[in-house]
Amino acid sequence: MGKAHSNAYCQAPHFFDLPYRLRRTLLCGRDAASLASMAERWGWEETSTDWRAAIDRADIDVVDIALPNHLHGPAAIAAAEAGKIIFCEKPLALSVDEARAMERAARGVPTLVWFNYRRVPAIAYARQLIDEGRLGTIFHYNAAYKQQWGADTSRAATWRMDPALAGSGVADDLLTHSLDTALYLNGPITEVVARARTLAPNRAVDDAVMALVMFENGSAGTFESTRFGIGCKNQNRFEIHGSGGMLRFNLERLNHLEFLDASNPPTEQGPRDLLVTDLKHPIFGNFWRPGHIIGYEHTFIATLAEFLQSLSKGEAFHPNFTDALAVQQALDAVQRSAKTRQWTAVEKEPVDTPVHNPVQ
Amino acid sequence: MGKAHSNAYCQAPHFFDLPYRLRRTLLCGRDAASLASMAERWGWEETSTDWRAAIDRADIDVVDIALPNHLHGPAAIAAAEAGKIIFCEKPLALSVDEARAMERAARGVPTLVWFNYRRVPAIAYARQLIDEGRLGTIFHYNAAYKQQWGADTSRAATWRMDPALAGSGVADDLLTHSLDTALYLNGPITEVVARARTLAPNRAVDDAVMALVMFENGSAGTFESTRFGIGCKNQNRFEIHGSGGMLRFNLERLNHLEFLDASNPPTEQGPRDLLVTDLKHPIFGNFWRPGHIIGYEHTFIATLAEFLQSLSKGEAFHPNFTDALAVQQALDAVQRSAKTRQWTAVEKEPVDTPVHNPVQ
Amino acid sequence: MGKAHSNAYCQAPHFFDLPYRLRRTLLCGRDAASLASMAERWGWEETSTDWRAAIDRADIDVVDIALPNHLHGPAAIAAAEAGKIIFCEKPLALSVDEARAMERAARGVPTLVWFNYRRVPAIAYARQLIDEGRLGTIFHYNAAYKQQWGADTSRAATWRMDPALAGSGVADDLLTHSLDTALYLNGPITEVVARARTLAPNRAVDDAVMALVMFENGSAGTFESTRFGIGCKNQNRFEIHGSGGMLRFNLERLNHLEFLDASNPPTEQGPRDLLVTDLKHPIFGNFWRPGHIIGYEHTFIATLAEFLQSLSKGEAFHPNFTDALAVQQALDAVQRSAKTRQWTAVEKEPVDTPVHNPVQ
Amino acid sequence: MGKAHSNAYCQAPHFFDLPYRLRRTLLCGRDAASLASMAERWGWEETSTDWRAAIDRADIDVVDIALPNHLHGPAAIAAAEAGKIIFCEKPLALSVDEARAMERAARGVPTLVWFNYRRVPAIAYARQLIDEGRLGTIFHYNAAYKQQWGADTSRAATWRMDPALAGSGVADDLLTHSLDTALYLNGPITEVVARARTLAPNRAVDDAVMALVMFENGSAGTFESTRFGIGCKNQNRFEIHGSGGMLRFNLERLNHLEFLDASNPPTEQGPRDLLVTDLKHPIFGNFWRPGHIIGYEHTFIATLAEFLQSLSKGEAFHPNFTDALAVQQALDAVQRSAKTRQWTAVEKEPVDTPVHNPVQ
Repeated sequence: MGKAHSNAYCQAPHFFDLPYRLRRTLLCGRDAASLASMAERWGWEETSTDWRAAIDRADIDVVDIALPNHLHGPAAIAAAEAGKIIFCEKPLALSVDEARAMERAARGVPTLVWFNYRRVPAIAYARQLIDEGRLGTIFHYNAAYKQQWGADTSRAATWRMDPALAGSGVADDLLTHSLDTALYLNGPITEVVARARTLAPNRAVDDAVMALVMFENGSAGTFESTRFGIGCKNQNRFEIHGSGGMLRFNLERLNHLEFLDASNPPTEQGPRDLLVTDLKHPIFGNFWRPGHIIGYEHTFIATLAEFLQSLSKGEAFHPNFTDALAVQQALDAVQRSAKTRQWTAVEKEPVDTPVHNPVQ
Repeated sequence: MGKAHSNAYCQAPHFFDLPYRLRRTLLCGRDAASLASMAERWGWEETSTDWRAAIDRADIDVVDIALPNHLHGPAAIAAAEAGKIIFCEKPLALSVDEARAMERAARGVPTLVWFNYRRVPAIAYARQLIDEGRLGTIFHYNAAYKQQWGADTSRAATWRMDPALAGSGVADDLLTHSLDTALYLNGPITEVVARARTLAPNRAVDDAVMALVMFENGSAGTFESTRFGIGCKNQNRFEIHGSGGMLRFNLERLNHLEFLDASNPPTEQGPRDLLVTDLKHPIFGNFWRPGHIIGYEHTFIATLAEFLQSLSKGEAFHPNFTDALAVQQALDAVQRSAKTRQWTAVEKEPVDTPVHNPVQ
Repeated sequence: MGKAHSNAYCQAPHFFDLPYRLRRTLLCGRDAASLASMAERWGWEETSTDWRAAIDRADIDVVDIALPNHLHGPAAIAAAEAGKIIFCEKPLALSVDEARAMERAARGVPTLVWFNYRRVPAIAYARQLIDEGRLGTIFHYNAAYKQQWGADTSRAATWRMDPALAGSGVADDLLTHSLDTALYLNGPITEVVARARTLAPNRAVDDAVMALVMFENGSAGTFESTRFGIGCKNQNRFEIHGSGGMLRFNLERLNHLEFLDASNPPTEQGPRDLLVTDLKHPIFGNFWRPGHIIGYEHTFIATLAEFLQSLSKGEAFHPNFTDALAVQQALDAVQRSAKTRQWTAVEKEPVDTPVHNPVQ
Repeated sequence: MGKAHSNAYCQAPHFFDLPYRLRRTLLCGRDAASLASMAERWGWEETSTDWRAAIDRADIDVVDIALPNHLHGPAAIAAAEAGKIIFCEKPLALSVDEARAMERAARGVPTLVWFNYRRVPAIAYARQLIDEGRLGTIFHYNAAYKQQWGADTSRAATWRMDPALAGSGVADDLLTHSLDTALYLNGPITEVVARARTLAPNRAVDDAVMALVMFENGSAGTFESTRFGIGCKNQNRFEIHGSGGMLRFNLERLNHLEFLDASNPPTEQGPRDLLVTDLKHPIFGNFWRPGHIIGYEHTFIATLAEFLQSLSKGEAFHPNFTDALAVQQALDAVQRSAKTRQWTAVEKEPVDTPVHNPVQ
C-alpha cells in the first residue's frame, strides 16, 4: 500500500487545489534496502526502520499507518497521544475493543481511514443518487468481493495469511471494504448471520466468508467475500434495489455505474450503463476530460485531497476512525456469527458519542 | 402455464423425432368460457371444469397438472392411483409430507416435474462442462432469482398471493427454480440458514427470501429470491466458481453462458460469452441454425420431448417426482430456518429408496 | 426457410387473434421424400414437386415463395397472374428489372416479403421511438451483419454459392436484411460507394461487402456484411446516433435494445439495456409474460399475423413488393458501385406509383 | 495536453526503472499567467511565452511539442536543427509535405509521436496476439472513434475548430488515432474511399468522416470518426476478424480486450472479456496489482518510459516521425478522397528510406 499512498501524496497537488503544501518527510518500514529504494523513487526525504520515529518528530503533522494490521492500534494510539493527524489503512484494528480504544484515543485529532473506494466517482455518485431519493425505499443490498489468488497456494507466506498479524483472512481484507461501502450507501447494519471457510489446506485464516444481513432502514442483503472466486481478478460488486430503481457497480469497471430509474415509463426502463466521467460527476472532473477514464490510484488521490479540504474548512471528514469503528463492529458480528452460527446483533456505540474529528 | 404446456404439445413433434404421437384430449379448468376459448386456440379436443375427469378417462395416458399448488397433491395422487403418467408443475407440493406422499404414490408410474430450466441449452451445457470436470472442485455457488412485479400492489389478487393455495410466495414460485438448478448442477444441499420477508403491506406471503447454503460437495453459497428486485424483469442467475473455472448464467439472456476456463494461460483468461446456439450444444440443434436464438417456451418443448424419448427407451427421466421431493426438502429447510433463525439441516430420504420412474 | 414458414402457419393462430383460418394446403419442393417428411411433420395436407401446382389450384389463396432466389420472379409473376396473395422470401429478385417486373405484376394483389426482422420487438420499438422524434435529427446510421460460416469451405455446395441461383453471395443474403432495416428505420438511401470481396478460393459469389451510404434525411453511414466475420454466429447489428440520443441493436440479443436518451441530464446519460419484453412493447405482449424472452421464429409468426390483420382491415402491409423493390434498388447501387468503384446514385421509381397492396 | 504530458514526466520515474533522470526545465505557452500556474502545479522550473526559448537552450535535451497543429512543423524542424530529441503531439503535421519535411529534418535525432494508445495494455496485447499469429489471416478491420461534443455548438471557439490551426476537424483529431492503431495492428493501408461532413452550422472543419479501406495484407475495413456520435463520450473502438479469431476493443473500457480464439472447439468459442491487468500482460505490471485498473494517463507514462528505455539501449522507438508520416499519408488519402469522391491510393515513401531513430 505504500506505493498507492506515496502516489497520492505526489499526485494530489497536481489535480486538486490543496490548502496545504505536502512534504514526504519520513518513510518507515522494516527493510532498510527497500526503504531506500522506495524513498528514492517516490521522493521521501528520510527513512527509518522504526515507525516510532515518525511519531517522535515534531516536524511531522500527519502519520499515515500502512503497517500490518496488528500494528494499526499501537501506532495509531501513539500517534494520537503525540497529537498527530492520523491516516490508517483498513481494517482499523484486530478487534472491536482495539478499534474502540483507537477511536477514543484519537478523538482529539483528525483521522482518515483508507476506505478509498468511497472516492470512486461511481460510488460517490451512487451515494448522491440515494441521497436525492432516487432509489426510494431500499429493499435489497447485495455485495460481493471476489478475488482468486487464494487458490494459488504458493502465495501463502505473507503477513496477510498470519492471523496474529492480519486478524483474519478475507474478512479483514475484502469484507471490510464491502461493509464500509454498505454503511456509506445504505446505513447501519443491525444483525447478521455468517459462515466462514478456509479452503486451502494448512492455511490459518479464512478464505471465504458469506453473510445475510439486516439493515436499520428495513432492507436486507447478502454479502460474500472470497479469495477463491476463480475468474475474478478484483470483483468488488454491489447491487441495490429500491422502490425508485436499481444501482449496480463492479470495481473492475470502476468508471461505470449501472442505474435503472423506475420512474421512467415501463417500456423505457433498463439499466443505464453510465460512464461516470462527466465533469459534473463527483470527483472525476479533477482529473481528465469526459470519457478519459481513471484508475485504482485515483481513489487514494481524491481521498487525500478531500481530507485536506475538509481539514482546512473545519469540517468533519469521512471515513474517519468513528466510521471505521462502525465497520469493525459489523465485521465483529460477522465473525462471531461465523463461530456461534447464530443470528448476531451488531453492537453500537453509545449514542452520547461526542462530535469527532476536530480541526487543528 | 396452460399456454406454455399447450404450446409444448403442439411444437414438440415439429422439432423432435418423437416416439409417440400426442393427442390433446382433454383440457380442464375452472371457467368454462375460458376453457372453450383456450381449447379452440390450442386444439384441445374436449374440456371439463372438473380435473378429475382427466383421471377417470381410460383413453388418457398422461395427466399434466398445472393447477394451483394446493391441488398438485390430490391430483397427482389420484392420477397415480389411476396409473397415469404424471406431469406436474413446480413446486411439487405444499409440504415435504405431501411431496413424499406424492412421490410414494407415483412410484409405479413415470413422472415429470416442470423444472423446465434444466432444458435451457446453456444450463444443460453448464451441466455438461461440470460433468466433464471442467470446473474442477467447486468452491462457490451463488444464485439469485429476481423479479419486480411484487412491488405493483395492484397485482396482489391471484392465487399466488394466497398461502393456502400457493404454499408460500416467492419461495415456492422462484426459489424452487433456483434450488432445482443448484441440485442439478452442484448436487445436494446439506444445511441452510435463511430469512424471509414480506415487503408489501397486507400481503400474506413472502416477497423475498435469502439463504446461506452448504453443499454436500464442500462448496457453499448464497441464494436470493425476490419479487421486489426492481429493475429485474426475470433475472434468474447463477454463478459458480471452481478450481477449473467459472460459469455465469442469467435467464434474461438464456441463449448465453459465460464460461471462464482457468486452464488457459493467465493472460488469456476471461469470461467467454458463449452464444449457446451451436448445433453441437445440447438441445439447441433441434431448433434453428447457429446464432438464431430461442426463447422461454423452447424449454418446455425440450422437456417434453426428452421425457418421451426417455420413456420409449425405458430410461429414467429427470426431473421427476423424486427430484422434486429433494427440492421440496431443501425448500422446507429454508422455510423452517426462516422461522427458527437457526442453521437447519436438509432432511434426506432413506437411502434404500428404490429405483423410480419405471417404464410402462 | 420452409421450417420457419411452416412454424409461422402453425403458431400464428396460437398467439394472435387472426381474422382468417389458415390451412396448410400444399407443400412444394424438389425432393419427394423430404417433402413427404416435412409435410408429415408440419401438417401439410398435400405435396408437389412442381411449384406451379400451387398456382393452378383454385382452392389456394396464398402462395408463399421460399424457392432459390432465381425462381422468385417466375413464381411471383405466375402467382400474381393467377390472382394469388403472394408471400416471398428475400431478396425479392435477382435484379432491379426483375423486381420491378414482379412489383408491377403484383400490383393487383396483396404482397408480403419476408424481411422478418421488422417484427423483432426491439426493432419495431426502435421505429416507434424514432417516429416519436426521440432520436431527433439523425446523424449516423451504422449497420453490420456478420456471420462466420463462409470460412468453412466444406459448406460451399448449396444454391447460395451459385450466382445463377442466388444472384450474389452475402449481398443478397445478409446485406438485404440490413438495407431493409435501414430503409424502415432511417428512410431512403440516395447514394453509395461499395466494395465486394470473395475471400474463399474458387468461390463464385461475394463473401464480404462494405459500403458508405448517404441517406435522404441527411444522415450517413457504413454498412458491412460478411460471411467471414469470425466470432460472429449471427451478428446483425445497427447503431444510430441522432441529436436526441442513440439506439443499438444486435440480433444475437434480439430481446434487447440499447437506448440512450440525450434529453436526460448529462450525468444520467448512458445506454439503457432495455429488455424489450414488456407487455406495452410492440409485438411482445402476444407471446409471454415480461422477461420471458422470445426467439428467431417469433419474427415470422408476427409478420404473418400482422399481414393477416392488415388484410382484413383493408390496410397496406409492409414490407410488401414495393418495399422490397426499394431494397433491390439500394442493393443494385451497392453492386454497381462495387464494380465501377464510383459513388453511385440509388435509382428511384417514378413518384406517380399508384397505391399498392389492394385488399381482396 | 500539457497536463497529460506533465503528468507523464512526474509519474514515469515512479513506475518504471528509467535510464535517465528527468528534469522539467522549461514550460512554454501563450499566456504567462496560466503558464505560471501550471508550472507551479507540475513543478516546471521555468516558463516562457516563446516556444523557441526551449530550442535555444543548450541545457535542454528534449523538446516536447504540444502546440496547436499548425506549429508542429516549425517547432519540430527548429528542434531538429538544434539537435534536440523531439516529442510531438499528433497529428504530426498539417499536410504530407510538411510531415515529410519534418521527418527528413529529424532523421538525425530520436523522435516520439504521442500516439499514446499504442501503450494501452489491451492494444499492446492485441498486437502481441497478432504477432504470435493467433488471429491468423486477417479478413476485416473495423474502426470507429466517436465523441459527442461536436453537437454542443457553444464549444466551437477553440483552435481545434479553425482549419488554419488544426488542419481539419475530426480527421486530424480522432481519425489519426484510429489510423495509427490500424497501421500498428494491421499494417499499411493501400487505398481508401471516404466522405467527410460538417454537421454544425457555420463550422469550418469536418465533424464526421467515414472511409472504406484496403490493407496491404489483403484485409479490408471501415473507419468512422465523429464528434456527433451522440451517446459516446470517448468511444475509440476497433474490431478485427481473422481466420484465427476476433479482437474487440473500446477505449472507454481501456482495461479490457475481447478475444475470441477460433481454435477452441465450436461449442466453447465466445468472446472472452479479458481484463488486461495481469502482471504478464504488457505494460500493466508496472502499475498495480492484477485487477486494479489503470486510466487514460497511464498510456502517456508508458510511452515516455518505453522511449527512454529504447533510447538508452540504442533501439528504435515507435511511433516515431516515420510512423507518423505514414499516418499522415493515410489521412491525406482519406482527405483527398473526400474531395474527389474517388478511390484513392495511399502514397508511400521511397523504399530506400534509411534507418531512422538514431541514438544520441
